[in-house]
Amino acid sequence: MYRPEIKICDCTIRDGGLMNNWEFSKEFVKEVFQGLVDAGVDYAELGYRADKKQFDPAKSGLWRFCDESDLRDVAFECGTKISVMCDVGRTDYATILPKHESIVGMYRVATYAKDIDKAIHLGNHIKNLGYEVCINIMAASHVLEPDMDEALGQLAQTNFDAIYLVDSFGYFYSEQIHYLAEKYLQALPGKQVGIHCHNNQQLAFANTIEGIIKGINYVDGSIYGMGRAAGNCTTELLLGFLKNPKYNVRPVLALIEKHFLRMREELRWGYEPPHMIVGMLNKHPKASLKFMDDFVAGKPTDLVAFYNECVDMEDID
Amino acid sequence: MYRPEIKICDCTIRDGGLMNNWEFSKEFVKEVFQGLVDAGVDYAELGYRADKKQFDPAKSGLWRFCDESDLRDVAFECGTKISVMCDVGRTDYATILPKHESIVGMYRVATYAKDIDKAIHLGNHIKNLGYEVCINIMAASHVLEPDMDEALGQLAQTNFDAIYLVDSFGYFYSEQIHYLAEKYLQALPGKQVGIHCHNNQQLAFANTIEGIIKGINYVDGSIYGMGRAAGNCTTELLLGFLKNPKYNVRPVLALIEKHFLRMREELRWGYEPPHMIVGMLNKHPKASLKFMDDFVAGKPTDLVAFYNECVDMEDID
Repeated sequence: MYRPEIKICDCTIRDGGLMNNWEFSKEFVKEVFQGLVDAGVDYAELGYRADKKQFDPAKSGLWRFCDESDLRDVAFECGTKISVMCDVGRTDYATILPKHESIVGMYRVATYAKDIDKAIHLGNHIKNLGYEVCINIMAASHVLEPDMDEALGQLAQTNFDAIYLVDSFGYFYSEQIHYLAEKYLQALPGKQVGIHCHNNQQLAFANTIEGIIKGINYVDGSIYGMGRAAGNCTTELLLGFLKNPKYNVRPVLALIEKHFLRMREELRWGYEPPHMIVGMLNKHPKASLKFMDDFVAGKPTDLVAFYNECVDMEDID
Repeated sequence: MYRPEIKICDCTIRDGGLMNNWEFSKEFVKEVFQGLVDAGVDYAELGYRADKKQFDPAKSGLWRFCDESDLRDVAFECGTKISVMCDVGRTDYATILPKHESIVGMYRVATYAKDIDKAIHLGNHIKNLGYEVCINIMAASHVLEPDMDEALGQLAQTNFDAIYLVDSFGYFYSEQIHYLAEKYLQALPGKQVGIHCHNNQQLAFANTIEGIIKGINYVDGSIYGMGRAAGNCTTELLLGFLKNPKYNVRPVLALIEKHFLRMREELRWGYEPPHMIVGMLNKHPKASLKFMDDFVAGKPTDLVAFYNECVDMEDID
């Protein structure tokens, strides 16, 4: 697949940080950034810009906050743009510098559909400071149709650059991706649409391909799939699939061998039965992360009981 | 997805045996078979029927040969039919009993397209003994179009039950699966078409779904994906996706937790970078299996050098 408009956003440090509390050393992040530059990746998302009044900087790694000075220690302005994510309701507007004082190229605003007005407010603030702005509507598999239509209609009125379809729970398969990709693309003329998939059912790469086939041009990956719970579409698979001559998978392979094989044995992201269960049931991975913590710690676990709890947990009248 | 014609064939013991030389204990295979029965799986493939004149029985586990007496120690005739695979050129015709003397329900003949005449000869022999017969055309991604058309045309003239599309190298993505599934279905009126995918690019489950969408009714899986190299579509994902009320994922989850999580740590099948590399390059996993053996043994490895070798190994004039 070669379409020059397609851009890879690698979110290894940002999404992977959810597995190690963003406790990556500066040396490591510098090496990852250089590898992504050498691989020709378009965006490198180096963390969150979380509000230090809400999250104690002493209790998380640097990349939960992405101070400008820390970013400058590990990265630089080049063909691989630096991306930072900020969550609606967890962002101190004052910490976002005017673009000419920053090496950040893009901010991605993560929001639930219900908070779309807040997301647009934050996005406008950032856009006015001179940055590219993406909006990532999280947990699309939990959004009712009229709410999604309204959110997309509001976003169509903005001057943001891209809007992401996010399968936070790894629930969708191809037919659902086709449906939503078409909806996003029709609702957002003139904007780019992106896709961010989780791998609970081993469908993250497949669904990303389906998005590309439908016309989505911004695709998220992470090295060796590092990300919360079942992890993400892998950057190396994207680099192998996309035929743009500027991409080169070798620097990412080198990073995997040097760092990520070992890290995965320790942190255990990726396809695991409890993450599959919550994915197929369209649920948040909180419970499956707890299960895997227990399993890795050698505590007793019961996968069938876990499945039964997940099926039953929402008994309602 | 619910279509009553869809049948799951679990090949954990047969394909998984490629990772441990079929050295599963009888107790283990009995437990797996019972779990598959309880899960409502349609076929349980318990191994190969390899020719003992070609393969020394002292050097492989029982399930490379599947003697009738061994099968009867671990399985029984019921709603879950017993399947045995036999390779063209590696099968002693005399070891296949008449159906009324055997608990086997189905034989699957594995062949390359170039050997289709031998496969039809063997298939006819087995069909005449009273069994269901499938033909699995291996390595479809290496078959030239006219050769595939000819093979399918010959198979259309047989009375075999099903013909499998096999992505031995984990090379295909959805568009290629759509094309081939349509080709097989059009060429084989009145027969079932099956699909067997490998997971080198994390597309085994996705491609199986795409086959189902196109009308394929026989789908292969293995527990926790156990199979050669990157492994297979997982049986638990199929059981979760297919909505036939007779299916129940719980017995398979119990087997995963009791046995397969630990086995995978030892045998290391599944998505791994060297298997991804041979998959995306449409190559046999021999070289990537050697790489993983070295890696697991703690020997020095070089993933970028491996990639370069795979890219370069077919320099030709």
